Amino acid sequence: IQSNKKRVLLISNSTCAGEAYLQHCASYVKSFLNGGNVKNVLFVPFALADHDSYEATAKPVFEEMGFTLTSIHHHLADPVSAVNSTDAMFIGGGNTFRLLKCLHSHEGLIAAIRQRVADGMSYMGASAGSNVACPTICTTNDMPIVFPPTFASLTLVPFQINAHYLDPDTNSKHMGETRAKRLAEFHEENTRPVIGIREGTALLVTGKDSVKLIGRSVGARLFLHGRTPEQQTEHKVDEELGPLLLVKGED
Amino acid sequence: IQSNKKRVLLISNSTCAGEAYLQHCASYVKSFLNGGNVKNVLFVPFALADHDSYEATAKPVFEEMGFTLTSIHHHLADPVSAVNSTDAMFIGGGNTFRLLKCLHSHEGLIAAIRQRVADGMSYMGASAGSNVACPTICTTNDMPIVFPPTFASLTLVPFQINAHYLDPDTNSKHMGETRAKRLAEFHEENTRPVIGIREGTALLVTGKDSVKLIGRSVGARLFLHGRTPEQQTEHKVDEELGPLLLVKGED
Ligand SMILES: [Ca+2]
Ligand SMILES: [Ca+2]
Repeated sequence: IQSNKKRVLLISNSTCAGEAYLQHCASYVKSFLNGGNVKNVLFVPFALADHDSYEATAKPVFEEMGFTLTSIHHHLADPVSAVNSTDAMFIGGGNTFRLLKCLHSHEGLIAAIRQRVADGMSYMGASAGSNVACPTICTTNDMPIVFPPTFASLTLVPFQINAHYLDPDTNSKHMGETRAKRLAEFHEENTRPVIGIREGTALLVTGKDSVKLIGRSVGARLFLHGRTPEQQTEHKVDEELGPLLLVKGED
Repeated sequence: IQSNKKRVLLISNSTCAGEAYLQHCASYVKSFLNGGNVKNVLFVPFALADHDSYEATAKPVFEEMGFTLTSIHHHLADPVSAVNSTDAMFIGGGNTFRLLKCLHSHEGLIAAIRQRVADGMSYMGASAGSNVACPTICTTNDMPIVFPPTFASLTLVPFQINAHYLDPDTNSKHMGETRAKRLAEFHEENTRPVIGIREGTALLVTGKDSVKLIGRSVGARLFLHGRTPEQQTEHKVDEELGPLLLVKGED
């Protein structure tokens, strides 16, 4: 989506170890939503199996921050209207395959979200909710527990995110692929940039040109097609990543 | 596949840390193939991007054990004939999504493999090659780098395998799902048993009734639908797992 009005906040993970839900990002979530004059938030709990209990986790956290929250699973007769009448959306984490399959199962839902984001509605995702903001879910870490009709997703941004990014453990004897190896496999089959965002961080995407890493000072790792693992680069909080992530133009 | 002639060896991982390719399982691979009177092995390198180099890795290891090996990528004009004229097949590891997509792309290939296994052809898989022997690839650990036409797979056995099974790291502060959590998510959406086989082990499936864990003495973890994490059970090398894994009958 190419729009000067775009306001998208993509969080690596909703919960950091030993902390409450959204605690690590509460301050910038609050200023992001206030910056969009948000009063009410439409919550999407599709990534978890139990929608009621997921809503019960999220609702008091948003109310504490001064926003009302309603979950889209109470509006499944007409989810497009729910999207069209909210100030903001928040898609929570869980299983990305389950989330994407459910998003595609509601006629017109994805198109409505895209239109609202183009028109300036604030969009927040965490973990799986950040994955589905990308062109595809091909850089999710999740297990493929259900088969979605496609891996194509919301394409609110033109690059891929790897959430919960984890550096290789040099002491490990486990032979499963490291995250960096998995992303190298992604680039054997695909060309889009991937940004690995570590826990405690988020990407703030505004307008047509700006992508900023925010949150804890742990940095992010950028994976570009055609580079060797050693050529991939580290990026710091507050760095402007737009020129690196938006180069190809959006579809 | 229900057949008294079934001979299937499903290895968790091809390489253990610090060892050569297939070294950890060479003795039982050799006796498995000799037990099936195997002279030549058809290799399937589809899980990796570079088929020639993958063949170059596998070929000398099988030759050293006394078998000839040819890779199916040299026979893509008629892969079904290649399957029909081999004594045994070995599907190597890599990315499960890429492997499954490629298997489905060759008309009649999956049906031919199933027919040959029913007729007693020896089948070996490692990692992704073990995942595709299951009803679906829904318990793979891999990243979904390409979109296959379905997650349905060879169904040589009626249960699911989680290869490279890894116990939860109780010291970790990382909030990504543990393997056990991922498999619990699988069982929120599916009912088939899953056996988590740790590195250095394999499952030997023979005839209609027998599934044995072989290899290193690290055991396997069985995940059954409807059980809590604490109710899931550990199983030892040489234990007969058929009654636990084959209970529902095969499709
Ligand atoms: Ca997840
Ligand atoms: Ca793999």
